[in-house]
Amino acid sequence: MSETAKKYKIAVIPGDGIGKEVTPWAQKALEKAAEGVAEFEYEKFDLGAERYLRDGAILPEGEEERIKKTDAILLGAVGDPRIKAGILERGLLLKLRFDLDQYVNLRPSKLYKGVTSPLANPGDIDFVVVREGTEGLYCGAGGAVRRGTPNEVATEVSINTAYGVERVVRYAFQLAMKRRKHVTLVHKKNVLVNAGDMWQRIVDKVAEEYPEVSHDYLHIDATTIFMVSNPSRFDVILTDNLFGDIITDEAGAVVGGVGYSASGCINASNEYPSMFEPIHGSAPDIAGQNKANPTAAILSAAMLLEHLGFDDAAKRIHAAVEADIEELGSTTRSTDEVGRDILARM
Amino acid sequence: MSETAKKYKIAVIPGDGIGKEVTPWAQKALEKAAEGVAEFEYEKFDLGAERYLRDGAILPEGEEERIKKTDAILLGAVGDPRIKAGILERGLLLKLRFDLDQYVNLRPSKLYKGVTSPLANPGDIDFVVVREGTEGLYCGAGGAVRRGTPNEVATEVSINTAYGVERVVRYAFQLAMKRRKHVTLVHKKNVLVNAGDMWQRIVDKVAEEYPEVSHDYLHIDATTIFMVSNPSRFDVILTDNLFGDIITDEAGAVVGGVGYSASGCINASNEYPSMFEPIHGSAPDIAGQNKANPTAAILSAAMLLEHLGFDDAAKRIHAAVEADIEELGSTTRSTDEVGRDILARM
Ligand SMILES: CC(C)[C@H](C(=O)O)[C@@H](O)C(=O)O
Ligand SMILES: CC(C)[C@H](C(=O)O)[C@@H](O)C(=O)O
Repeated sequence: MSETAKKYKIAVIPGDGIGKEVTPWAQKALEKAAEGVAEFEYEKFDLGAERYLRDGAILPEGEEERIKKTDAILLGAVGDPRIKAGILERGLLLKLRFDLDQYVNLRPSKLYKGVTSPLANPGDIDFVVVREGTEGLYCGAGGAVRRGTPNEVATEVSINTAYGVERVVRYAFQLAMKRRKHVTLVHKKNVLVNAGDMWQRIVDKVAEEYPEVSHDYLHIDATTIFMVSNPSRFDVILTDNLFGDIITDEAGAVVGGVGYSASGCINASNEYPSMFEPIHGSAPDIAGQNKANPTAAILSAAMLLEHLGFDDAAKRIHAAVEADIEELGSTTRSTDEVGRDILARM
Repeated sequence: MSETAKKYKIAVIPGDGIGKEVTPWAQKALEKAAEGVAEFEYEKFDLGAERYLRDGAILPEGEEERIKKTDAILLGAVGDPRIKAGILERGLLLKLRFDLDQYVNLRPSKLYKGVTSPLANPGDIDFVVVREGTEGLYCGAGGAVRRGTPNEVATEVSINTAYGVERVVRYAFQLAMKRRKHVTLVHKKNVLVNAGDMWQRIVDKVAEEYPEVSHDYLHIDATTIFMVSNPSRFDVILTDNLFGDIITDEAGAVVGGVGYSASGCINASNEYPSMFEPIHGSAPDIAGQNKANPTAAILSAAMLLEHLGFDDAAKRIHAAVEADIEELGSTTRSTDEVGRDILARM
């Protein structure tokens, strides 16, 4: 350990299912990539389905306070078929994203050499989705009356603020400046006229500050078409919480599977730690079988390093992952084999 | 004209852009397919962008009343770049779907022989999306305060009723009985817990009446993955208004383009006329060039015939379309050439 290495505290939340199998590999990659430049201390949190089933706790205040004091979070996956949909998602994963004000949900999609896309002619795919992370239909507003009766009415409310939209729009344009300088706003402004109109106006306004960046607009439905027919057209996709959830899963499929897609839930003003996670879920069907691909989790460690400013360390992970996929991407390997192979190249 | 032919009044709304080019072919196909069994009288409505720009009218009450008195509606497409997004969509297309209580938005997806899917291994694709058509985020509830200021807040409200959900769920199970007997509910119940939970409970309840029909559940994000990785797994997809909008466009792409996808906005209780339309939009980029594929519009005429009970006439259209695509689907033809070729086979 070099004496000048900076020290960071990382919260590790392996969570459920394959989250527990892939997260140790993210941690090992982090460790190895940062050797000599950063020193990490880990605090592991036992949160997720098993904890909930054991003692009913989802995200106790004391633990959330400790998480808030770390420098970054590595998360595996959350969700378990034994638990009613929404309890862990809303109580743990989304609660962290909201309470820690992680307003940029950053999701790169890249078709790596050696990965077979389900598309016949995928072309060069390399774009980033900037998904708003703290508003929209995810805010938990809504309710139900006369539940379980023929007169039940259930609502869901999408809340969107100029404050919340503008900061993520600005992030997208700044990101585009470092990339191919194109932003595509995705919404459904011909139906969701209140929110859609606000998003479009704010994009048009912020765009004036970035004359080098071009921008266009697509409806979410049309975007799902282009994602299949011409995904190379995208550079930075900017969208709200729900549309971002949907389009990044389709994007993950198009680049050969969500096993290669990492994401960062970023508090770009750094008041709270940012959180890095593979976009895949807990995959109960293959959990505990040493089958899950740890590549997405390992790539989320690279995003964590970039976020802390260790670009060279992040590049070491990217280079190892790219070489691994190119050479061995089409072979069937266990979680641990892929992890070891990638680590060996670093 | 046979003396026993039944008489029907059809409202024709060509609308905007390529809608005007493809709708005449839908009408011709309807006419030819029903020769001797049904007699159609057409009432054409000048509604859409040009009318709006000319006299500001979107859907005048008198005209809507006349539309309500017809037996079915053929619609082309609505939307024009000169008009702010939402005005025609909300004022004309969605207003008709809502006012005419067209609660089943039926959207079959089929990969025809002769069509090249963008997927490398598409498999046999043949499913129907049953999209709820009169509720959810499409109901126009929502608003904005402090518009245009840094303190703007914009909301969109999804309203879902047990009454509205149950009738479309029942329709989906009835449809599944005539098909491969499988229903997949698509929602996002781990986040939209109020609406999602209600949908799931109603599906579970109605499913008890259809013991032969199996059913499962997928989140909308996961559905976009399966749509690319294994679309053959679907038989009947049952979903809400917004998710149905999104997934049918992706489905259209996967079966080789929305040019082959028709849809019916169906009032299954027959209090008001049902409406049949291609799922593609007005496509301003190719409008007026005799380039648009009229196949989807022609297939919407077949759906209209099925709806009125003329299954054999509908089959004549399907057979002609299938033969046309198999033989000539990969050639470049004008709107009129495709129309003539299909008509010639009927
Ligand atoms: C688990 C779920 C709540 C989550 C989301 O919808 O954001 C997931 O799908 C994701 O994309 O990270
Ligand atoms: C034009 C638009 C309002 C419409 C919708 O969103 O329903 C269209 O996309 C469709 O799918 O028919």
